[in-house]
Amino acid sequence: MRAVALGGGHGLHATLSALRRITPDVTAVVTVADDGGSSGRLRRELGLLPPGDLRQALAALAAAEDGGTLWAEVFQHRFGGSGALTGHAVGNLLLAGLFEVLGDPVAGLDEAARLLGVTGRVLPMSAEPLEIEAEVTGLEGGGEVSRIRGQVAVASTPGQVRRISLHAPGRPGEPPAACREAVDAVLAADAVFLGPGSWFTSVLPHLLVPGLHDALVRTTATKVVILNLVPQPGETAGFSPERHLDVLFEHAPRLAVDAVIADRDSVPTPARLRRAAAELGARAHLATVADPGVAGRHDPDALAGCVREALGLTEREREGQ
Amino acid sequence: MRAVALGGGHGLHATLSALRRITPDVTAVVTVADDGGSSGRLRRELGLLPPGDLRQALAALAAAEDGGTLWAEVFQHRFGGSGALTGHAVGNLLLAGLFEVLGDPVAGLDEAARLLGVTGRVLPMSAEPLEIEAEVTGLEGGGEVSRIRGQVAVASTPGQVRRISLHAPGRPGEPPAACREAVDAVLAADAVFLGPGSWFTSVLPHLLVPGLHDALVRTTATKVVILNLVPQPGETAGFSPERHLDVLFEHAPRLAVDAVIADRDSVPTPARLRRAAAELGARAHLATVADPGVAGRHDPDALAGCVREALGLTEREREGQ
Repeated sequence: MRAVALGGGHGLHATLSALRRITPDVTAVVTVADDGGSSGRLRRELGLLPPGDLRQALAALAAAEDGGTLWAEVFQHRFGGSGALTGHAVGNLLLAGLFEVLGDPVAGLDEAARLLGVTGRVLPMSAEPLEIEAEVTGLEGGGEVSRIRGQVAVASTPGQVRRISLHAPGRPGEPPAACREAVDAVLAADAVFLGPGSWFTSVLPHLLVPGLHDALVRTTATKVVILNLVPQPGETAGFSPERHLDVLFEHAPRLAVDAVIADRDSVPTPARLRRAAAELGARAHLATVADPGVAGRHDPDALAGCVREALGLTEREREGQ
Repeated sequence: MRAVALGGGHGLHATLSALRRITPDVTAVVTVADDGGSSGRLRRELGLLPPGDLRQALAALAAAEDGGTLWAEVFQHRFGGSGALTGHAVGNLLLAGLFEVLGDPVAGLDEAARLLGVTGRVLPMSAEPLEIEAEVTGLEGGGEVSRIRGQVAVASTPGQVRRISLHAPGRPGEPPAACREAVDAVLAADAVFLGPGSWFTSVLPHLLVPGLHDALVRTTATKVVILNLVPQPGETAGFSPERHLDVLFEHAPRLAVDAVIADRDSVPTPARLRRAAAELGARAHLATVADPGVAGRHDPDALAGCVREALGLTEREREGQ
């Protein structure tokens, strides 16, 4: 089975960890709008794709043996102290070096994937760094709409995010170009996964890259949305599971979804979620997919089980993949 | 043939490039006293071994195919711009990450060597960063001796360097500990090479690590000194080839040398060099070993030819290695 997961950060890590249990053919399509932390510093200093989310995806798909583990550990290692390197993940620096030497982020990611023994592939949603802009209410009172810019600002706004848009910095009117290999992967996929993750800043951005949006609309793949366990403080504070689906639909009205996966205990009113899913043409799959030991984290085995169920895969079919 | 080359920087690179043409069993034993540039910044910020000379040695021994070339290029790539990363070589950052994750520079270097497809091994002369101190005359006039500290200061002094000493920073009286694997390599070697390179700051430091000095005195390996093509501005400005040998002897009076290799055109008075070599028990081998295209650089093929001659190796013997 060819699976494609779109997202960023910890949410994408969760999906990839589950999918690698189902199939060796996993492609991650990763957001490139981050402007915070080590990634933001590298992006500003070197003008490269922010590498952090890409690095996380590589680590999620890294081999569990044959040296893959060591390199994944080195990739994820962050320098301490209080100097110029503080907080930089080694993998971010190495990806930056590969991008500069090869002049092509896709080639760089393929080399890094080889180093880490990744099964599958990690791709950026766009070959150039992008910027998120959000319409937010509640910042100035009176229902007035403010515009804020940048992933960090959007993710942490005390206002209510209404809608986001995406563009290359300095070209606000121009729609961002999709990474060609990512478009091809979506079109060739058997199943495509959106979420979980920061809804406005890691999940929805993919729908705002026209080439990727169109591929998602056209692909014959089964489309699966995986909902968050808890609303994100900031961007989706107070959002119900249904509101997540509504927002998705508002940003991509032509996108049909086949299945919605949610954690049973994170859904206050299952009937409402089923109804909201049905409005998108999807069936809701409620199961216990939260990690009982770590709040807010999916259990990869449980999530893999629910994905199999949603796709109608039996264990035997899985073995045959 | 088991060859061990001791040095640092471009000089060591030249020796390694020549030796890899003769045998696949090359061990580099690299100085760890650098305090300048990217290495100096990493050393100060993270308290790790300065990685630059180690990186150069890895690149010199990197595989010419099977991906080794790309990783060597990434290792050697330096970030540009004017930010926090400017001037850092990617390989320096990756070595720093490996050292921190593995907690052991030798293990980190072995992993990096695997990545680059190195034939042979790269070892530090000591597992902890060291500091060079030099006695210098001519700085204050009247033949007075000044003491200066740090590789950059010593390498660029306008004074005359008389003698150097080496210690771990903060422990000036204490002799530095040798890297155990480096000592073992010297003892097991068939041939050991000193130089070319910055004489006081890249070549002589090895002789001031007691464990390494003793191994060099005890080993049954053929000991070969390769002289510089030109005196280094600063530390050895105006030094004749013979003066280089004298200084070596002053720092390690018990060390017997078997062969001295020098570029024919860089030796103003061959008879004097032959005499100075003989005083160390060595035979002088003069040949054209300079790269005709690049001033101050050895030609690796020519140097390899002269090394073979100095060791009494024929082409056939080489094939059999």
